[in-house]
Amino acid sequence: MNENMIKQLLLAVKTGEMDIEQAVCQFKNLPFEDLGYAKIDHHRQLRKGFPEVIYGEGKTSEHIVNIMKKLKERSCSNVLATRINKEVYEVIKEQLPEAKYYQDARILMIEQGEKKARGCIVILSAGTSDLPVAEEAAITAEAMGNNVVRIYDTGVAGIHRLLAQRERLNQAKVIIVVAGMEGALASVVGGLVDKPIIAVPTSVGYGTSFNGLSALLTMLNSCASGVSVVNIDNGFGAAYSASLINALGEE
Amino acid sequence: MNENMIKQLLLAVKTGEMDIEQAVCQFKNLPFEDLGYAKIDHHRQLRKGFPEVIYGEGKTSEHIVNIMKKLKERSCSNVLATRINKEVYEVIKEQLPEAKYYQDARILMIEQGEKKARGCIVILSAGTSDLPVAEEAAITAEAMGNNVVRIYDTGVAGIHRLLAQRERLNQAKVIIVVAGMEGALASVVGGLVDKPIIAVPTSVGYGTSFNGLSALLTMLNSCASGVSVVNIDNGFGAAYSASLINALGEE
Amino acid sequence: MNENMIKQLLLAVKTGEMDIEQAVCQFKNLPFEDLGYAKIDHHRQLRKGFPEVIYGEGKTSEHIVNIMKKLKERSCSNVLATRINKEVYEVIKEQLPEAKYYQDARILMIEQGEKKARGCIVILSAGTSDLPVAEEAAITAEAMGNNVVRIYDTGVAGIHRLLAQRERLNQAKVIIVVAGMEGALASVVGGLVDKPIIAVPTSVGYGTSFNGLSALLTMLNSCASGVSVVNIDNGFGAAYSASLINALGEE
Amino acid sequence: MNENMIKQLLLAVKTGEMDIEQAVCQFKNLPFEDLGYAKIDHHRQLRKGFPEVIYGEGKTSEHIVNIMKKLKERSCSNVLATRINKEVYEVIKEQLPEAKYYQDARILMIEQGEKKARGCIVILSAGTSDLPVAEEAAITAEAMGNNVVRIYDTGVAGIHRLLAQRERLNQAKVIIVVAGMEGALASVVGGLVDKPIIAVPTSVGYGTSFNGLSALLTMLNSCASGVSVVNIDNGFGAAYSASLINALGEE
Amino acid sequence: MNENMIKQLLLAVKTGEMDIEQAVCQFKNLPFEDLGYAKIDHHRQLRKGFPEVIYGEGKTSEHIVNIMKKLKERSCSNVLATRINKEVYEVIKEQLPEAKYYQDARILMIEQGEKKARGCIVILSAGTSDLPVAEEAAITAEAMGNNVVRIYDTGVAGIHRLLAQRERLNQAKVIIVVAGMEGALASVVGGLVDKPIIAVPTSVGYGTSFNGLSALLTMLNSCASGVSVVNIDNGFGAAYSASLINALGEE
Amino acid sequence: MNENMIKQLLLAVKTGEMDIEQAVCQFKNLPFEDLGYAKIDHHRQLRKGFPEVIYGEGKTSEHIVNIMKKLKERSCSNVLATRINKEVYEVIKEQLPEAKYYQDARILMIEQGEKKARGCIVILSAGTSDLPVAEEAAITAEAMGNNVVRIYDTGVAGIHRLLAQRERLNQAKVIIVVAGMEGALASVVGGLVDKPIIAVPTSVGYGTSFNGLSALLTMLNSCASGVSVVNIDNGFGAAYSASLINALGEE
Amino acid sequence: MNENMIKQLLLAVKTGEMDIEQAVCQFKNLPFEDLGYAKIDHHRQLRKGFPEVIYGEGKTSEHIVNIMKKLKERSCSNVLATRINKEVYEVIKEQLPEAKYYQDARILMIEQGEKKARGCIVILSAGTSDLPVAEEAAITAEAMGNNVVRIYDTGVAGIHRLLAQRERLNQAKVIIVVAGMEGALASVVGGLVDKPIIAVPTSVGYGTSFNGLSALLTMLNSCASGVSVVNIDNGFGAAYSASLINALGEE
Amino acid sequence: MNENMIKQLLLAVKTGEMDIEQAVCQFKNLPFEDLGYAKIDHHRQLRKGFPEVIYGEGKTSEHIVNIMKKLKERSCSNVLATRINKEVYEVIKEQLPEAKYYQDARILMIEQGEKKARGCIVILSAGTSDLPVAEEAAITAEAMGNNVVRIYDTGVAGIHRLLAQRERLNQAKVIIVVAGMEGALASVVGGLVDKPIIAVPTSVGYGTSFNGLSALLTMLNSCASGVSVVNIDNGFGAAYSASLINALGEE
Repeated sequence: MNENMIKQLLLAVKTGEMDIEQAVCQFKNLPFEDLGYAKIDHHRQLRKGFPEVIYGEGKTSEHIVNIMKKLKERSCSNVLATRINKEVYEVIKEQLPEAKYYQDARILMIEQGEKKARGCIVILSAGTSDLPVAEEAAITAEAMGNNVVRIYDTGVAGIHRLLAQRERLNQAKVIIVVAGMEGALASVVGGLVDKPIIAVPTSVGYGTSFNGLSALLTMLNSCASGVSVVNIDNGFGAAYSASLINALGEE
Repeated sequence: MNENMIKQLLLAVKTGEMDIEQAVCQFKNLPFEDLGYAKIDHHRQLRKGFPEVIYGEGKTSEHIVNIMKKLKERSCSNVLATRINKEVYEVIKEQLPEAKYYQDARILMIEQGEKKARGCIVILSAGTSDLPVAEEAAITAEAMGNNVVRIYDTGVAGIHRLLAQRERLNQAKVIIVVAGMEGALASVVGGLVDKPIIAVPTSVGYGTSFNGLSALLTMLNSCASGVSVVNIDNGFGAAYSASLINALGEE
Repeated sequence: MNENMIKQLLLAVKTGEMDIEQAVCQFKNLPFEDLGYAKIDHHRQLRKGFPEVIYGEGKTSEHIVNIMKKLKERSCSNVLATRINKEVYEVIKEQLPEAKYYQDARILMIEQGEKKARGCIVILSAGTSDLPVAEEAAITAEAMGNNVVRIYDTGVAGIHRLLAQRERLNQAKVIIVVAGMEGALASVVGGLVDKPIIAVPTSVGYGTSFNGLSALLTMLNSCASGVSVVNIDNGFGAAYSASLINALGEE
Repeated sequence: MNENMIKQLLLAVKTGEMDIEQAVCQFKNLPFEDLGYAKIDHHRQLRKGFPEVIYGEGKTSEHIVNIMKKLKERSCSNVLATRINKEVYEVIKEQLPEAKYYQDARILMIEQGEKKARGCIVILSAGTSDLPVAEEAAITAEAMGNNVVRIYDTGVAGIHRLLAQRERLNQAKVIIVVAGMEGALASVVGGLVDKPIIAVPTSVGYGTSFNGLSALLTMLNSCASGVSVVNIDNGFGAAYSASLINALGEE
Repeated sequence: MNENMIKQLLLAVKTGEMDIEQAVCQFKNLPFEDLGYAKIDHHRQLRKGFPEVIYGEGKTSEHIVNIMKKLKERSCSNVLATRINKEVYEVIKEQLPEAKYYQDARILMIEQGEKKARGCIVILSAGTSDLPVAEEAAITAEAMGNNVVRIYDTGVAGIHRLLAQRERLNQAKVIIVVAGMEGALASVVGGLVDKPIIAVPTSVGYGTSFNGLSALLTMLNSCASGVSVVNIDNGFGAAYSASLINALGEE
Repeated sequence: MNENMIKQLLLAVKTGEMDIEQAVCQFKNLPFEDLGYAKIDHHRQLRKGFPEVIYGEGKTSEHIVNIMKKLKERSCSNVLATRINKEVYEVIKEQLPEAKYYQDARILMIEQGEKKARGCIVILSAGTSDLPVAEEAAITAEAMGNNVVRIYDTGVAGIHRLLAQRERLNQAKVIIVVAGMEGALASVVGGLVDKPIIAVPTSVGYGTSFNGLSALLTMLNSCASGVSVVNIDNGFGAAYSASLINALGEE
Repeated sequence: MNENMIKQLLLAVKTGEMDIEQAVCQFKNLPFEDLGYAKIDHHRQLRKGFPEVIYGEGKTSEHIVNIMKKLKERSCSNVLATRINKEVYEVIKEQLPEAKYYQDARILMIEQGEKKARGCIVILSAGTSDLPVAEEAAITAEAMGNNVVRIYDTGVAGIHRLLAQRERLNQAKVIIVVAGMEGALASVVGGLVDKPIIAVPTSVGYGTSFNGLSALLTMLNSCASGVSVVNIDNGFGAAYSASLINALGEE
Repeated sequence: MNENMIKQLLLAVKTGEMDIEQAVCQFKNLPFEDLGYAKIDHHRQLRKGFPEVIYGEGKTSEHIVNIMKKLKERSCSNVLATRINKEVYEVIKEQLPEAKYYQDARILMIEQGEKKARGCIVILSAGTSDLPVAEEAAITAEAMGNNVVRIYDTGVAGIHRLLAQRERLNQAKVIIVVAGMEGALASVVGGLVDKPIIAVPTSVGYGTSFNGLSALLTMLNSCASGVSVVNIDNGFGAAYSASLINALGEE
């Protein structure tokens, strides 16, 4: 409901095209669709530049299917559902044959609309166990129209593996660093480049990793500047932020 | 030490301009200056696009003065020291008459070099008590060459104050949200705009605010996408990230 | 055992109707029933206005059946058992054919006594995953004789969905806000209305949601006034408090 | 900005009394006053039934004085500032001679408007060290037009002291329980009465009281129903909630 | 290895009954038996008054059987193994037909030696879900030769149930209080009696009970004196301490 | 208010010596004295065997003086106030010349009544920094009529210092172990003796001692049986429990 | 890439054997092998003295097999994979018939290269449940060429079992102490010997052991000097550190 | 009290040089000196290779002086007291004119005995604010007879500063890494060298550094092997461990 829409409504009232009760109603009826168990936010694409994304965890497969279908109808962009386990996908797949499942990333996607390919987002991961989170970020970023470069298994225990990638790092617009255990990778990368870094702590580790808390604290306390952080295992959120940032460079 | 420098060195070796021992040494002598108690990273401007910034907490005033002087000599940008309390400033000010002190922000700055004015960073704060952190962000962002718009005291308890600012929010390239207590402002702003948001939890609050932990968790768990987070009270870090992002839009 | 009862006992002693030993005994025999593994508090209806409610978690199905039967006999109100999983219900249902099972809410209820319909309690939930807790609150509130209005999936990431409900919010006597993740909904609602709000954090989320801790802290630190909080996932407790409050308005 | 106001604005547009640009502006200009460092929410009295209350901690005495004066001018109710230490009051008192200082409660108040005296809120405290928080609640509740009954130093270590107060407890509309250390008082009172209870954990204690965390957890886990909880030491918030509840009984 | 034993050894050396090498060896050979995976501490009965008790969790059934057999041979008291789940018992029972299994308490016991019946230990539990921990305490205390009185399901939400038990409480030598959720029972009992109380927090509860942490903190912060605390769910440890205390009264 | 008192009251009612209103009143008037800011629990000596002890922290010196005077009048035992800092004592001492101040223990005591000297409580401390807590325990135990043996500075880093004290340990009825840092002393002593042990973690240490949390956890997880635990730095509570236990041995 | 290698490269450039582009490339090509999902660090043996060890948790069995095969080819030392559960081993074993599985230790090893037998590392464990972690340390240490002495089940609850081992302790070069629950063993051993101690907290315990946190804090706060600590359950890491230390004594 | 001493005692008993009572006494009299408030462990030098070191925090200056004097008399090595603030030193210095004060390290030392100079311990610190902890380690290590190389201010934000030091790192026998904030330095160094590393987290930082907890967790979760960790700010303990390790290389 932007200023233009307000102006047009007011104009319609002034000209008598619309009576006052109708206008009052219009001010209240914003574009969301109420399924009872969910209110789909069709307005989001206007407001945020990308349609609502379904967070699959804790939703029934029936709900997931219905919401994806509704979003597909009303949106002209890719429709995404994250945190879709293989078991859930097996149940869903016949009802949504047009959707593609990315198993590592646990993402289900219906591709539609024109493809964009904005400048490069580099996704670095520290260890092979961080792969699912890194892939959640990668698939999300691609779905949102970004070129993605994956550089995996480059933890600081063998820092030459990272230093060997400096050139590719310097070509990035934004860098997503995915790391569990002690999460030191974000600081080291932050010391090497002049690009914004989104750090994603993962729950990889044991004992005092406390399911990602250790990596999270490391990243929040990074002695290198230019690092901001998202929730543990939130590959999706990192890609979303990175995509908004990357879009700035394209305007 | 980029690829060009390596090539030139190797060329000099090949042509005999430089002997091998000298070249070995060159590979090792990167541009930092060792004061004993500190190694000033003059190379950082090349690497990160902005010179090293002095974190004043826990440093003696003598160290602060010396490092600022060295940075001033070797850098062509503004020289910044953060977390400088008024007491420390009183001691320092005669030795650094060219430095300007921003009391709210607790920042000491020597201005030099050309002024830039990149597109707008909006800094929102939730309450008046969050002002010092918001100002740390604002002064830092300005020092790094960004236009800054301050919108303070717009917490969600009176959400119309926030909604009244929507137009100014939409003009931002990046938004910094500074909030203590429950920190809900980041989520609400994240639901309204399509710009990257850097959220800064502050230690404002009491009891279960746990010195900013409550706001931090809120921001990390934001149900709105596009929000990434820095350390509690880290106005400087938020501005640094925002400035890197803002620079992308200008390239 | 109120003052009247004391007076009558003393009167009986004075007139010789009751001898002293009997009276001593009476002072001790308060109305609870000892099943060995449980002491059913039949006195509670007098004291609290609603009979004891069975917390099903950690009780054997045999115990649940027996306690519900005893409560049904001695009480003239609805008999409730909460946290009854589907598996437990399957075992119980033949022995308690008169009980109705609410699967979303995980509540088992024997309806009896007159139906009341006190003024309205609004139950707001932030996301579809919060539905089980919201329903636990809704069914409990209805069982205790309150009209309930459910407004689900109105999280702050799409704040227009919430603002669209303002009129219905204003008709509430009490509002229960159910939210997981960052739990910001309670603060925003608290800024909009002048009714008491009971906030229920849920364990919905991942990573730093820490099973509801993040939402709990948010709600305890709410910058909006008029918000009080119950335990994580405690839909029952929120409804109980709301019902006591709602009853005040009816006296 | 309620429905009536919207209608009148639209009517004015229709009749031409107001042009469209003005109307757009009106929709945006909600009644708050911008002091730069603070945006006073004069609209709050309409929305919440009581004007904005100043949280004094972290504000300069100059800011406190100015905001109180503005609120006094524009409001017709008592003006309150909480968390005003004695030192701050000494600085302020000459500029606000009409304000009364409640030292135990650390509250500064300008009384104005008609006095209300709604039905009784009982405030129970567990120990003498909980007195400042109990008084913050008491003065706030009185300022908001409630009758208050104080019952202090009735901790569960001498439970007969509490049982002796049952009659007074039963006359309450709402009960505020203020307790530090292990905070068990809320559960015991919750087992005795059928009135809503707002529990306030205090930071009284040492060692594993963890500055009120122990009492907070106790209150959130209360085995007695009807207890909801506010932040540690938040006497103000408890009174605010209790006052909203108490007002229901008077409607 | 007490002073008498040292004297006798030295005497034997002096008289030549024992040569020096043998004596050196004797000083080193204290009575424990090395099974490789375990060193059974047969000396413990002398030192602690009761033989080593087997903590079953994390041990293979084979180890449990072997250690119980060895202890049975060498000890003249009851042999106990705690934390034996039903599944483990099913595997073990044929190899240890003389052992009795207490399912609620998860204890396996071989009874032998004379039965003692020292003065009474009262075990109070707050709710029916605390029964397993209470029974672990009860069976352990009985196995160690104490009379046990069980008073279960007497939580503070219906405090008359507790007050009705005062006489039985006063007859105790020691009281064990077992409670989960908010654990307030220990404080209330501590205010009523002049006997030492051992409090056992249980992991019963959900959300902010944090698996017993809430009850633990409550008990450690008890405003009533005379309460000491053992680990969460440690019914065995409470009974052990209570038995040592009870034995003092019998000397 | 024991059974005899109830009988006598009822008898008086029966014989007409007392009318019913008076009797109702009597049932309500339990012996506590209301000073407004405090309700002194004179009944406690009957109920708990020792009069109320004043916890000095957070009380004004005026309150402390008044409560001590009241307790002195009405009690026939020693009157104790704990956590009295030297500064507070300096203010108080002229008004209470009969009180003796124990500086290490931060205890103020008025001695009166007959002196008892029950069997021995041993107080072990791990390091010299634990002395204040150990002394709080020692003075409290002596005030309550127990013989006390102090064994200080016997931490496990030099375990021969502890083993050298075995004989004295064996003469104890109860042992109080006071230790900060890692608190391992309780486990080691628990492995050596067959007496009940009350463990007191202290806040001595730095870093991960987390103000006594490390020692507390160690003591709660003690692999030796017979150890129960009180709050961090709670020397008073340990002595109170130990005294109740010691009294059992004397009955 | 050491100094010698740099010199040779430069020499080759000078003499024209290698052209500049090739040399630039050489500086970048450090010896790691990229499998896509993993970058095997073949360079590690040179840098760290032992090849990369595979952390099996969270890796697919296919990845484990491939990486082990690659390491076997390129390395001349034992190839180790840790945290290999029995289920994973059953899947792998046919593809790696040359690998030996150590079930207690959950380690899979391919033995190759010459056997070393450096001076002795003693591994102490507190209880039988700590055995898996102790064995992870023991097998790792043996694989890295150290003599290992195992002393298991010597917790401080029966301290004579430990004192009986003093002679063996004194023959160690390094001591690894593995303990769960309260973890006091490290402090006691630290007080007895003059050798470096690596302490490994284990997740053995329940309740307030918090999955090893209690033991970890104990070990970090050890009042005995010479103790350093690794992550909870990190037997591998302790052995690695111990092996590096042991190697110093052999140089 | 080693085996030889036992043999000689027994021999003396056999030959009649010593009677049995004397021998019993000898077995008990281990060499510690009881000052009442402290038991000085003169035996420690034999047992641990270095005399007892005084932890100054929480001790009176009188105690510190007396214990240092006693240790000086009985020991032939340097006498150390750590955590001596400047204020305490000012009080002490006249009574201990022979002691030298190291202000940065907060250490007071009396030098005596022969000087040793074992192979090199490198102490790395991440930032200038970590200097006090690094110096505590450095002075302690020197006092214990080790050569120390200090490399300060080499944090990972400018990793070339660290890489420039590789040669010096490789000459170390042991490396101590001192770092606050995110503590990533330990992991990076651990990836570069094959020497044992003792990591010391410092309390430098703010917000989520949680007084060193963030750095501690990072170091415990280091993805590089060979890193073990001591308590936050425990420079002394790191040096003690490093010295024991360094001594192995010299045997």
